Amino acid sequence: MFFASDNAGPAHPKVIEALSKANEGYAMGYGADAIMDRVRDKIRDVFEAPQAAVYLVATGTAANSILLATMAQPWQTIFCSPMAHIHEDECNAPEFYSGAKLTIVPAENAKMTPETLRASIEGEETRGVHGPQRGPVSITQVTEKGTVHSVNEIKALTGVASDYGLKCHLDGARFANALSFLGCTAAEMTWKAGIDAVSFGGTKNGLLGVEACVMFDPELAWEFELRRKRGGHLFSKHRYLSAQMDAYLADDLWLDMAGNANARCAQLTEGLRGIDHVTLSFEPEANMIFFQMPRAEHARVLAGGATYYVMDGDHTSGDPDRLLTGRLVTDWSMTEDVIESFLALMRG
Amino acid sequence: MFFASDNAGPAHPKVIEALSKANEGYAMGYGADAIMDRVRDKIRDVFEAPQAAVYLVATGTAANSILLATMAQPWQTIFCSPMAHIHEDECNAPEFYSGAKLTIVPAENAKMTPETLRASIEGEETRGVHGPQRGPVSITQVTEKGTVHSVNEIKALTGVASDYGLKCHLDGARFANALSFLGCTAAEMTWKAGIDAVSFGGTKNGLLGVEACVMFDPELAWEFELRRKRGGHLFSKHRYLSAQMDAYLADDLWLDMAGNANARCAQLTEGLRGIDHVTLSFEPEANMIFFQMPRAEHARVLAGGATYYVMDGDHTSGDPDRLLTGRLVTDWSMTEDVIESFLALMRG
Amino acid sequence: MFFASDNAGPAHPKVIEALSKANEGYAMGYGADAIMDRVRDKIRDVFEAPQAAVYLVATGTAANSILLATMAQPWQTIFCSPMAHIHEDECNAPEFYSGAKLTIVPAENAKMTPETLRASIEGEETRGVHGPQRGPVSITQVTEKGTVHSVNEIKALTGVASDYGLKCHLDGARFANALSFLGCTAAEMTWKAGIDAVSFGGTKNGLLGVEACVMFDPELAWEFELRRKRGGHLFSKHRYLSAQMDAYLADDLWLDMAGNANARCAQLTEGLRGIDHVTLSFEPEANMIFFQMPRAEHARVLAGGATYYVMDGDHTSGDPDRLLTGRLVTDWSMTEDVIESFLALMRG
Amino acid sequence: MFFASDNAGPAHPKVIEALSKANEGYAMGYGADAIMDRVRDKIRDVFEAPQAAVYLVATGTAANSILLATMAQPWQTIFCSPMAHIHEDECNAPEFYSGAKLTIVPAENAKMTPETLRASIEGEETRGVHGPQRGPVSITQVTEKGTVHSVNEIKALTGVASDYGLKCHLDGARFANALSFLGCTAAEMTWKAGIDAVSFGGTKNGLLGVEACVMFDPELAWEFELRRKRGGHLFSKHRYLSAQMDAYLADDLWLDMAGNANARCAQLTEGLRGIDHVTLSFEPEANMIFFQMPRAEHARVLAGGATYYVMDGDHTSGDPDRLLTGRLVTDWSMTEDVIESFLALMRG
Repeated sequence: MFFASDNAGPAHPKVIEALSKANEGYAMGYGADAIMDRVRDKIRDVFEAPQAAVYLVATGTAANSILLATMAQPWQTIFCSPMAHIHEDECNAPEFYSGAKLTIVPAENAKMTPETLRASIEGEETRGVHGPQRGPVSITQVTEKGTVHSVNEIKALTGVASDYGLKCHLDGARFANALSFLGCTAAEMTWKAGIDAVSFGGTKNGLLGVEACVMFDPELAWEFELRRKRGGHLFSKHRYLSAQMDAYLADDLWLDMAGNANARCAQLTEGLRGIDHVTLSFEPEANMIFFQMPRAEHARVLAGGATYYVMDGDHTSGDPDRLLTGRLVTDWSMTEDVIESFLALMRG
Repeated sequence: MFFASDNAGPAHPKVIEALSKANEGYAMGYGADAIMDRVRDKIRDVFEAPQAAVYLVATGTAANSILLATMAQPWQTIFCSPMAHIHEDECNAPEFYSGAKLTIVPAENAKMTPETLRASIEGEETRGVHGPQRGPVSITQVTEKGTVHSVNEIKALTGVASDYGLKCHLDGARFANALSFLGCTAAEMTWKAGIDAVSFGGTKNGLLGVEACVMFDPELAWEFELRRKRGGHLFSKHRYLSAQMDAYLADDLWLDMAGNANARCAQLTEGLRGIDHVTLSFEPEANMIFFQMPRAEHARVLAGGATYYVMDGDHTSGDPDRLLTGRLVTDWSMTEDVIESFLALMRG
Repeated sequence: MFFASDNAGPAHPKVIEALSKANEGYAMGYGADAIMDRVRDKIRDVFEAPQAAVYLVATGTAANSILLATMAQPWQTIFCSPMAHIHEDECNAPEFYSGAKLTIVPAENAKMTPETLRASIEGEETRGVHGPQRGPVSITQVTEKGTVHSVNEIKALTGVASDYGLKCHLDGARFANALSFLGCTAAEMTWKAGIDAVSFGGTKNGLLGVEACVMFDPELAWEFELRRKRGGHLFSKHRYLSAQMDAYLADDLWLDMAGNANARCAQLTEGLRGIDHVTLSFEPEANMIFFQMPRAEHARVLAGGATYYVMDGDHTSGDPDRLLTGRLVTDWSMTEDVIESFLALMRG
Repeated sequence: MFFASDNAGPAHPKVIEALSKANEGYAMGYGADAIMDRVRDKIRDVFEAPQAAVYLVATGTAANSILLATMAQPWQTIFCSPMAHIHEDECNAPEFYSGAKLTIVPAENAKMTPETLRASIEGEETRGVHGPQRGPVSITQVTEKGTVHSVNEIKALTGVASDYGLKCHLDGARFANALSFLGCTAAEMTWKAGIDAVSFGGTKNGLLGVEACVMFDPELAWEFELRRKRGGHLFSKHRYLSAQMDAYLADDLWLDMAGNANARCAQLTEGLRGIDHVTLSFEPEANMIFFQMPRAEHARVLAGGATYYVMDGDHTSGDPDRLLTGRLVTDWSMTEDVIESFLALMRG
């Protein structure tokens, strides 16, 4: 009963197997391996983007930061939501790589709205050379609160950006979970909706640690390569990144894994709705649930063997009725039985 | 017959096996996994440094750059040899992470000498606030030309640094190969010889991609952690880094692998000495050989199925007698037979 | 009738005279001039801080950015108000110099409150290594909206900072205007109230372009000097900065100039209160007034020969009754007559 | 008898007068002053470059660093001589602003040669993404050793740069002295010779502190403005920079001042040639002399009331016959009599 994070679960056995298979003989390093050629083609196929530049890095923070550095100038500001991973969870990495600052756009259900985005953009660049200049917009899909932008919601945001000539980045750490929820194509959720570059996550969905960076306009591909190397993110034994992504994309493994994580989350959501002392904070749409529950219940459940994060404070002492927010994340490897066991524990 | 680089060879099967074994159930992320606790202890044991701060990253450039950033201030200069990896092969990463610049110290056999280092240090900080201030010294062991500093040579360099109150970093991308050559302990080659921090390489010696950063003075450990995260180098599924290093250090696998690479290099060196049209550029002491040979011979050997780098230009056309430098690197997986086959090809 | 900014007015003739007087013969450069020795002593006297480190730079952005860079680490966040000059008007300079990011603390009357500051500090550093770490607090005095923190208000903010071990910076671009309003001493408004470092402005108050950086704890003085040089802000012919500041501090010229600017602002405020179509946005306490007035009135007054900024849009067309905000800034050189003429024009 | 530096002398009285005259009434800030319009036109005239972008900053380090930041990418290396001011005397400012590193090109008479430049360029970018990429070439005119590149020498260097598609920067801290020596036009010494951007110095030649940045291709003008602001180098009361440059260019004052400095240097050089115990290190061509003299002679002359730098160590004790290098710099304000007095003292 481990719901702390989708990066706490195991990698899919097929991924380990792929590593083992890739581990034969010699291979050129630094992305010149034969597997990477296949991966590049597959990702271009998935995105229906034959010209796209495709690169692999090992962490989501690297993917976001290097992509944003190619999209933003050091005197600009990047627009994102208050709970954006790039703002809250990357210890200034996007600023370090790009030199830009971030403008926090008010959000509803963890999503910027066209209105708040427009107002934030209007609020910048009103001071000539004195203030930061308008830079790219970064959208997280699945959001950090487990909600998913519809394709139309993405289009509405990129439409606002486009009114000001700004580019759009998609932080897709949980890209597969979003796609699985929406039932659309990768192209529809990205470039057809106005997205210029994507952090295409694999780590949270069954890989050991690989994210693809996809730039639909390959113009800055060489700059990306130099920034990746300058950041220390170019792997010499690159084949082991390639092999993971290769297995991920084979036979829709990535969508199957995300589908199961989402299904377990739906099962869990349904069960939680039937528990009186539980209130959902957001409508769970992918594989993540935020919920409120009295402190004493949290203490009981965690003592009972479940693992998850309590977001806002100490669950071990104080007023037993105080409401605290918990976060539950399901992953590809979770079974129906585990969900049922956890729900039984939650019910008390 | 693949001698292009020791990062082109496979990982050791035991390492893949360790990954597979680590891939069970849930594990806390970001370095809080149980395997990392064991790795930290093992590395402290290897270095006889119970207080050392120990962290893992996935690339050598990251290891060097983050360590140097904790050791150097943005207004300082880092002293290194003209062929230092941090100078020639990291696309400004050390400067990016630290803000410091590099001062190139003349070298013999790819090693700074106490005299050249002292002269270079004396040459800086003669201009008060105007010039860069003296920063740390970075020594590569094995050097980029395949030579190895004796313990006394390291002591002589760190002694000069110490005269000016400067700290010393060891770029140990091929740490195991050096240790295997010298036959001393890790402690003797590092902190007992005046080294403050080590990039302890694994990638070039049988891992998929892991380097340990070892700081003998743990005072800046928390700063290191923040810099690692800010650089995007903190792995969420950290157990897969830990597992590699765990297997590496188990039963002296790391020393066995380096020992074999060095033995194959020695075998190859001896063979090359017997070939008239070959001249060794440096005395090969670990697993890397630089040699000179007429252009036409290079063309013949490479056409014959061998793979290695020709460092200084086109081997396919022009004067057949022009001497060109080749680089041969052996790795842990190489057999005596492969060396003999290659030597046969070289002899022509 | 020029109210656009206090940096649009002339320098005091005594300052020009001091430049002329300083322009005799040779003087050591880079701050080693004899006038600087006197200035350093005077500023230490003004602040009753005999140990303080004192440096001069030519712009407020440089003063703020270099000071904050000595106070903040690249993985931290600096707390400031939404209208802080360092956030809105320095084109990412504080981020460039420090590497840190900014956390925007909600404000009332352009002042952070102890409650909003505490909540913002509490909101950071809840995520271990993942989020930015808490850094210094920067307070603007006079605020960007013309209000002035009382000494107790400053103490309340620095008290909150101190609860978390955070240092405090005062952006005193209009330091003299604040002091003149409060009638306290420079020491009372700064280190006795918990401030660690001050940007002590001169440019907006009758100098050509000089700001003093005052660090009450001189520990990082040498770092400041290196950061100043590295930013290109060390003047070779430093005597011309020294001479300006020397004249500024002689015979309380600085306080006289600020006193007149404030008095003219008070005169102007009183007059505006008597005009029906004018509403003051904030209580003007120093030398700056924000006011609301129908668009058509703005158009009329500006056409009538006055110069000031309309903050929120086009005053030349559209609904004549639309309320727009104007900003009026008085400076040391303004006469009572000019104020009266402007008020007459405003009345219509 | 003050020969320490040309930034130790006074500003020309006409410059102070211009400041005084500019100090009337109100003026728009940040470069929008009317004097700047005139200055921009004058500089375009001087350079016969009607399209050039022209900006003012207050220090040479700022001028060099901001210009180079517009010309170099963070993954590139800037080519310069071993004694380049940007390498030795700017405390990492060019690296700070640009993110690039510097490649030191061997020099003769403080000048890179076409051969050494070509070899250095050839030495970079041989390693694909691994090493720094080739960036701009920076030439200092007058060199840091007092020699002057002929127009043909500049052309030869820019020609090599052009072979690799690299841009060229001229650090003209002593631009006027070079022009006065060569007797050519500003255009001939710059864009007609292949220079793309110039730091056009005024501070060392009679101003208080102003350098013009001239970009012959105005494409990156707006980027320059943003980088200047982000560096804290945009002056609010900009008219005081404009006024200095305005006076500088009026009636060829700048050339007259440089002419006198050069003439005094020539007079001094001729006198020194007649002194047995003096050896000139370089052929003085502008306003700077490096010479060797026995230690005891230095001690005697300095004790006798002269001020200049001894570059290589203690002149107060040790072997009286040890040869030490001194540096003498003449400035616009120096008289023939002072030179004669100094020569008399030198002769002993």
